[in-house]
Amino acid sequence: MLSPMTARPDLRPELSQAATRFTHRVTVIDEHGQPREVEMPAERDLTLYLDRRELVTLMTMGAHPELLALGYLKNQRLVPGIEHIASVQVDWEVNACAITTRGGVPDIEARTARRIVTTGCGQGTVFGGLMDELDRIHLSDTRISQGTLYELLDAMRRHDTIYKSAGSVHGCALFAGSELLLFTEDVGRHNALDAIAGWMWLHGVQGQGKTLYTTGRLTSEMVIKAAQMGVAIVVSRSGITEMGHRLAVQLGMALFARCTQRHFLLYSGHERFIAEPELAPPPPQPWTPPPGRGG
Amino acid sequence: MLSPMTARPDLRPELSQAATRFTHRVTVIDEHGQPREVEMPAERDLTLYLDRRELVTLMTMGAHPELLALGYLKNQRLVPGIEHIASVQVDWEVNACAITTRGGVPDIEARTARRIVTTGCGQGTVFGGLMDELDRIHLSDTRISQGTLYELLDAMRRHDTIYKSAGSVHGCALFAGSELLLFTEDVGRHNALDAIAGWMWLHGVQGQGKTLYTTGRLTSEMVIKAAQMGVAIVVSRSGITEMGHRLAVQLGMALFARCTQRHFLLYSGHERFIAEPELAPPPPQPWTPPPGRGG
Repeated sequence: MLSPMTARPDLRPELSQAATRFTHRVTVIDEHGQPREVEMPAERDLTLYLDRRELVTLMTMGAHPELLALGYLKNQRLVPGIEHIASVQVDWEVNACAITTRGGVPDIEARTARRIVTTGCGQGTVFGGLMDELDRIHLSDTRISQGTLYELLDAMRRHDTIYKSAGSVHGCALFAGSELLLFTEDVGRHNALDAIAGWMWLHGVQGQGKTLYTTGRLTSEMVIKAAQMGVAIVVSRSGITEMGHRLAVQLGMALFARCTQRHFLLYSGHERFIAEPELAPPPPQPWTPPPGRGG
Repeated sequence: MLSPMTARPDLRPELSQAATRFTHRVTVIDEHGQPREVEMPAERDLTLYLDRRELVTLMTMGAHPELLALGYLKNQRLVPGIEHIASVQVDWEVNACAITTRGGVPDIEARTARRIVTTGCGQGTVFGGLMDELDRIHLSDTRISQGTLYELLDAMRRHDTIYKSAGSVHGCALFAGSELLLFTEDVGRHNALDAIAGWMWLHGVQGQGKTLYTTGRLTSEMVIKAAQMGVAIVVSRSGITEMGHRLAVQLGMALFARCTQRHFLLYSGHERFIAEPELAPPPPQPWTPPPGRGG
């Protein structure tokens, strides 16, 4: 693990440790009319309160609720720095997460009202004000080789996941080179990514030299969030949308999508990629008649 | 097609027809270092204005932007009835959708503020106030047979989709029995479902006797939205979460998930299902040694 660091460890917030049961077993009926036992991921509502003011209700599996809350705050820009947060306390008895700041958030009423209106409520986008910020983001000159990309994909394939047992969750991981720093899953790809953002914020980890892996699609919001985290290389098992692609080109971010086994497609940021095509599986050869059969 | 109907067709809103290019072609690099041409779905920001008041920015592929806007309004409960909407005009020059009501929305400022705070902004949930409404929903006694389910899955498999050419979108369809009424795709499963809700609202189509198909996962919000549409049978190619399951049990809704080819799992609402296991493929037989080999 990379050694986490903050400028002032004494100002790191106190977090509860409220990770809880992640899956739930249920009996279903299959196409033969036979009962079968299957697992589903948990899904819980978690209402965030910032200094006792209700902020938002998130639906989460509950693997990293404190990091999710931190990442949400970070991405919403409601608190200027992690050192302003005194504690994050999750209580599943009441499905609440109480975030307490040191000294309060100035003008919280106006700020939460404005933020919420600009974030594309109810449809999973934080589009509004964030587009303007993209112009000010300059990603570092991080690069990745094909060999490292393969190591990263191998690590994800071997990783034990809720997805393998219960499906219906998205995973997200942060790598330094091929070293896995954090892996998290949640019922939404945005929540999984927010938990990574919360962990980076908590520990003062910068995006430089890091690679973000996600099982989810690379829509505009995923690219925006990665850019806000300062991560220049993003890898997805899934596909990509036009705006995700356009923003990545604008940012000079490398986007690898459709990554399975040894296959991948590089959509943007070619200059960040050190190709090693000799590591790729041999391409399918055109058919030729077998020798010695006379035709 | 089912004959759409509204009580007062003369009060149906005027809609623009702003469906636009759905996919975008781009050159990528594969693992062999070779360029390849692939397609991506379009993704556009569309800001909704209700009587000139900015409401929300949605990210959409743009297949049914007017229906999406209507469905969003319907699900947010901002306008009491479709007859209150005079027009829905989408203009891609400015990525705006202007919704004009007949006579205005009383107390719009307070209502939009309240609604937006309760909808789980930024993470794709409309959880808050909607849970309370579920107790008042009584789904009709619609049932579905295994044969009809198979016809519906066959229709979806044969259907021409953006997903097949470009990936990265979710599809949603409304069926009456095995008859396809509407199919729509969007970059988010919530948007695709909202467009269906908008279409039903526009044409006065009730959920009774209908089946909703989605390629997306059955999370709590998908189940809540289906219930609000009055649809008692929901079919998904993907999986399910614990809360999606729990709400469906509470509502008496039939949820079919993991539906592929002839396979499916029925998670809830068994009494709505007419099993015809003779239509299922034969289950795999236990291995027995081939005859006549003496061992």
